[in-house]
Amino acid sequence: MTLVRFLSYHRPAVIVAAACIGLLAFFLVNPSLVRAQGVDGETNFVLNTFMFLVWGALIMWMCAGFTMLESGSVRTKNAAMICLKNIGLYSIAGLAFYFLGYNLMYVDVDKYAGVIGSVAGLYVSSATEVALLDGDENALAHVVDSGYSTMSDWFFQMVFVATAASIVSGAMAERVRMWSFFLFVLVLTAIIYPIVGAWTWGGGWLSEMGFSDFAGSTIVHSTGGWAALAGILVVGPRLGKFRRDGSARATPPSNILVVTLGVFILWLGWFGFNGGSQLALGSAADAVAMSIVLVNTNLAAAAGVMAALAVSRPIMGRIDLFAGLNGAIAGLVSITAAPDIVDHYWAVVIGAVGGVICVAALKLLEKVRVDDVVGAVPAHLFAGVWGTIAVCIAGGATFHVQLIGILAIGAFVFTVSFGLWLAIDKVLGARVAPQVERLGQDAGELGMESYPEFVLMPEEFDDD
Amino acid sequence: MTLVRFLSYHRPAVIVAAACIGLLAFFLVNPSLVRAQGVDGETNFVLNTFMFLVWGALIMWMCAGFTMLESGSVRTKNAAMICLKNIGLYSIAGLAFYFLGYNLMYVDVDKYAGVIGSVAGLYVSSATEVALLDGDENALAHVVDSGYSTMSDWFFQMVFVATAASIVSGAMAERVRMWSFFLFVLVLTAIIYPIVGAWTWGGGWLSEMGFSDFAGSTIVHSTGGWAALAGILVVGPRLGKFRRDGSARATPPSNILVVTLGVFILWLGWFGFNGGSQLALGSAADAVAMSIVLVNTNLAAAAGVMAALAVSRPIMGRIDLFAGLNGAIAGLVSITAAPDIVDHYWAVVIGAVGGVICVAALKLLEKVRVDDVVGAVPAHLFAGVWGTIAVCIAGGATFHVQLIGILAIGAFVFTVSFGLWLAIDKVLGARVAPQVERLGQDAGELGMESYPEFVLMPEEFDDD
Amino acid sequence: MTLVRFLSYHRPAVIVAAACIGLLAFFLVNPSLVRAQGVDGETNFVLNTFMFLVWGALIMWMCAGFTMLESGSVRTKNAAMICLKNIGLYSIAGLAFYFLGYNLMYVDVDKYAGVIGSVAGLYVSSATEVALLDGDENALAHVVDSGYSTMSDWFFQMVFVATAASIVSGAMAERVRMWSFFLFVLVLTAIIYPIVGAWTWGGGWLSEMGFSDFAGSTIVHSTGGWAALAGILVVGPRLGKFRRDGSARATPPSNILVVTLGVFILWLGWFGFNGGSQLALGSAADAVAMSIVLVNTNLAAAAGVMAALAVSRPIMGRIDLFAGLNGAIAGLVSITAAPDIVDHYWAVVIGAVGGVICVAALKLLEKVRVDDVVGAVPAHLFAGVWGTIAVCIAGGATFHVQLIGILAIGAFVFTVSFGLWLAIDKVLGARVAPQVERLGQDAGELGMESYPEFVLMPEEFDDD
Repeated sequence: MTLVRFLSYHRPAVIVAAACIGLLAFFLVNPSLVRAQGVDGETNFVLNTFMFLVWGALIMWMCAGFTMLESGSVRTKNAAMICLKNIGLYSIAGLAFYFLGYNLMYVDVDKYAGVIGSVAGLYVSSATEVALLDGDENALAHVVDSGYSTMSDWFFQMVFVATAASIVSGAMAERVRMWSFFLFVLVLTAIIYPIVGAWTWGGGWLSEMGFSDFAGSTIVHSTGGWAALAGILVVGPRLGKFRRDGSARATPPSNILVVTLGVFILWLGWFGFNGGSQLALGSAADAVAMSIVLVNTNLAAAAGVMAALAVSRPIMGRIDLFAGLNGAIAGLVSITAAPDIVDHYWAVVIGAVGGVICVAALKLLEKVRVDDVVGAVPAHLFAGVWGTIAVCIAGGATFHVQLIGILAIGAFVFTVSFGLWLAIDKVLGARVAPQVERLGQDAGELGMESYPEFVLMPEEFDDD
Repeated sequence: MTLVRFLSYHRPAVIVAAACIGLLAFFLVNPSLVRAQGVDGETNFVLNTFMFLVWGALIMWMCAGFTMLESGSVRTKNAAMICLKNIGLYSIAGLAFYFLGYNLMYVDVDKYAGVIGSVAGLYVSSATEVALLDGDENALAHVVDSGYSTMSDWFFQMVFVATAASIVSGAMAERVRMWSFFLFVLVLTAIIYPIVGAWTWGGGWLSEMGFSDFAGSTIVHSTGGWAALAGILVVGPRLGKFRRDGSARATPPSNILVVTLGVFILWLGWFGFNGGSQLALGSAADAVAMSIVLVNTNLAAAAGVMAALAVSRPIMGRIDLFAGLNGAIAGLVSITAAPDIVDHYWAVVIGAVGGVICVAALKLLEKVRVDDVVGAVPAHLFAGVWGTIAVCIAGGATFHVQLIGILAIGAFVFTVSFGLWLAIDKVLGARVAPQVERLGQDAGELGMESYPEFVLMPEEFDDD
Repeated sequence: MTLVRFLSYHRPAVIVAAACIGLLAFFLVNPSLVRAQGVDGETNFVLNTFMFLVWGALIMWMCAGFTMLESGSVRTKNAAMICLKNIGLYSIAGLAFYFLGYNLMYVDVDKYAGVIGSVAGLYVSSATEVALLDGDENALAHVVDSGYSTMSDWFFQMVFVATAASIVSGAMAERVRMWSFFLFVLVLTAIIYPIVGAWTWGGGWLSEMGFSDFAGSTIVHSTGGWAALAGILVVGPRLGKFRRDGSARATPPSNILVVTLGVFILWLGWFGFNGGSQLALGSAADAVAMSIVLVNTNLAAAAGVMAALAVSRPIMGRIDLFAGLNGAIAGLVSITAAPDIVDHYWAVVIGAVGGVICVAALKLLEKVRVDDVVGAVPAHLFAGVWGTIAVCIAGGATFHVQLIGILAIGAFVFTVSFGLWLAIDKVLGARVAPQVERLGQDAGELGMESYPEFVLMPEEFDDD
């Protein structure tokens, strides 16, 4: 009785209080509801940052992949030089993007009418992040709000730059002077690539138009491909590559195991390249998207291999391992513009078409006497263009915007690279002396041999 | 006074309200209690998914490991073909598991009396996950409840399939026709392996019996080993491998650096293989278990190396690097059935015994004139059987159940593979022509050489 | 009217209750406040542990890097032996650190006056963690409080030990007997390195003095370097390395592609080495710090390459790839003592100076007739000392404390190693017989060849 009277007398307060208790109890006994609240801000920050670092490390590994792919593809007399060019270009890219490129690409793009960013100098970790490290608790919220650590983003973007530069070294192998190449890499990674990046990922005019290139079929791979094409047009083909009748001499890879290893490395690194381009890992949606990206990346590469192998017989006259390996790269490049499509059979189609295009382009370049030593232009430029257009089919991009992006970036990169190579050729000489080329850059320019203890076949030079 | 009167008058409401405030305050000032609530659902989902992707990428890397191990082990005249077979098998496995295998292994196993799953066709990301990506907030809870992204699981399982196929290519190297091999891989990865998987990880009858195989000593490695054994029995030994008196000719690895690199790659990839098989990372218990798994994996491999080196002298007549390298693989295969044991000295014992078994089996196969080029059957089949039985000792599995699993999977895989190889041999020819085999598959079947610029020893053929 | 009267009558209770509701609502509608609460304890535990496992796996990969660097650097006649020594040392290090080293380094350092830890025997996962795995919910809080899984820490520390041992194998290559080397590795990884570790990371006297060595410029790399220096002083230079007039014969790397691959592997692994040494990933501050660490690591390596290349011409007479590759290692070793500096240009300076020191030291060692086959002493010892001192400039360490640490560790490791090598030489013989050395350790000690099918140059021996 007393309880009933008590409850009826204090009814309103009791109701209100009971509601409070109910709400609390609801959350206490119902952890799934607490769970649905999602990733908290600081955990989100940690996950995003760690993701950039892990995938970034895998992308850095792609430099080793390019090095192996290229040094196994060139003739033994130039393999050491390719190793040197590759470790050098990665170093130069890292320093150039630190001293200049990153700022140009990302900082204050708006100031210059959305075209390129500022060229602020030396880079120090952001003051807010440093304050946090110094124990300033007020800095925490600001840092967490930024989503990820600035330097993890720098790291991730830096390895992308290096990829673009790697593409050039292979195409122009066996004849370009080391210092001339390094100078070109410096400009490419400090200025040319960052300008392309400012137009797109930096928030510039192509980005505002709606140009869609998830991880850089055009922005990274075609950029590298255009720069490579400009370079090989300026320096010309290797001595003896084309006979007087225009037919091409075979220059088979000197160490196919190393080439294969390089392709596997690139395939692995590409999981980081495309996966990390989701740019976030702090929600279930991001994790789902990243999973889809990795699956499509793998499907496209696999389809690229099998399609390239299949068409290598009619196009090249035999089942060709080198074509299959390039098919993997072409499949990967093709899917890079839209690895986030949820209908995965499109990834198979895009990769397969990329593989076919690459093999056809390998043949085509030979016909028109363009000497691309490792097939970088077919695999990165041709497949990159295809992949960027394929976004219209599979991912809903607007065709004319994609085309404008492809053409604008292509025109810019090709023109500037061509001019730069011409200038380098004038001032420094882009190409080694014929006797150095015949002897090989290893002995002629570096004074060493790649395989000094192995007995090698004497090379024959005839009518060139 | 007023306060006292007020409190006594409204006592009940005050008590209730104070309790509410108290509860709230308790949680606010006691973050450790909030902390003890554990990982929230969405963070759990992200961690599980990211774990699958990172470890899955490392497992994909194992394909490069097998490629290097095998292409360095075969004679130079067949090294390019092994590269081609390996990049091809990884591509085929990825496509076959996408179009067929995954569904067969995991979807609706119950429908078919717990034996195999359905054979639904093209695979598109789950509708719920796509809805989430499209911004449907209602989908979130459903997605989060599933624990991890479907496609991250697909990615992780796909790289397992490829591992099983890789085992076959090495054992049968230097004589199997490329297209015949690819056809076998297609069936193995689309049907044979997924059926074994459906029986176990898919929730089928072996799983219900309590068969215990954490990451696949039997399910993956013995499956590959049985398929390889069936194949080498059908195609027979390489020309000249065994003399008329039955003794074996030495066919030492042609590039031991590359073999060693392959083993290191496999060792690294195995951290993903076993670590990811914990299948979750969303709790302290999972993180602890995964750490234990990596430690045991490393201990078993290290013990396998040292044990194999130690017994290589009495068994093979000299300290043998190739035996030591195979000992690493055997140690890794052995621990794969139970890397989660908490008494770590068992990992040392299991790995060491695996290493000894492998070296003994290498010798045994030679005695019975079975020609396994890279030692895949000793390292994956023999060590896999040992590892699966060892779970009884170290991990509390039931002996007769483990035996049933080993025998059932062995009988199934061996019989089907043997029949399939016979059929392939009848229809396509499993083996290359003798003149191609003598010349080498690189020159004879691919029209290329692995090391075209290097002067190689002429091979001598005598009494075969 | 009724509501107003009701509210005024029950005013106090209403106010209190409303406050409760308000508080609840505040947290419900204000997820950002919940977000600011930070990473919860269990998520923190999972992140820390996973980070150790992922970065630890990358560090294990450094063993493959050392193997490639060394086996490509030695002459072909000793390449297989280097592969064997490296896979053997990694195995021995793993077992020795399990049976003895870890306890010595970390457990109960206090008991022995802060010098070394206890030598407790076999290692089993901690009882609390096992209890958690067995479902004991009470164990959770204790486990979570520990910050990370014990075995993940063991895994991470184990791969560090292996790194120290790897340094020795390269410097002493081409002449040290296999079993003698393995015996030295056993003592180094079971006792010598753990004692150094106990003084520093184990909490011993150098740690209490404030010795600052973030990831081990001195503790890992100089320790390996001192041990290597002691070894090469005891066994002496290779036959024929120095002519009678004291000048050095060139012994160029036999396979520069493999050396380059090794350096790329080490560079990649170093992200784990330095990044993981942050030891935590459970807060925004940790994630920021780890990002900074990876960026500085990369900048220092890049600067090391370019600086070493630049000075290789004046110092060595030509642009030298081998110097550039060693410059990368030296840059990495240099930054290892303080990769967490927030002014990133310091990383560039530290790495560049490290690269220059390394090239100068390569030349210096040749002058004083010390035969370090791969340049391990210049890259790991000289650059390690420089890096440890550089913390005073860039990171605020105290000069005399750093100096004491460098000298104490150097004196201890060098003396003990020197004595041990002398003892090994007396009892077992540290060096192979001259005829084995001339023939090569592969054929002479292992009975195999690294490249059995390749025709190699005959080696000429003259005035030795």
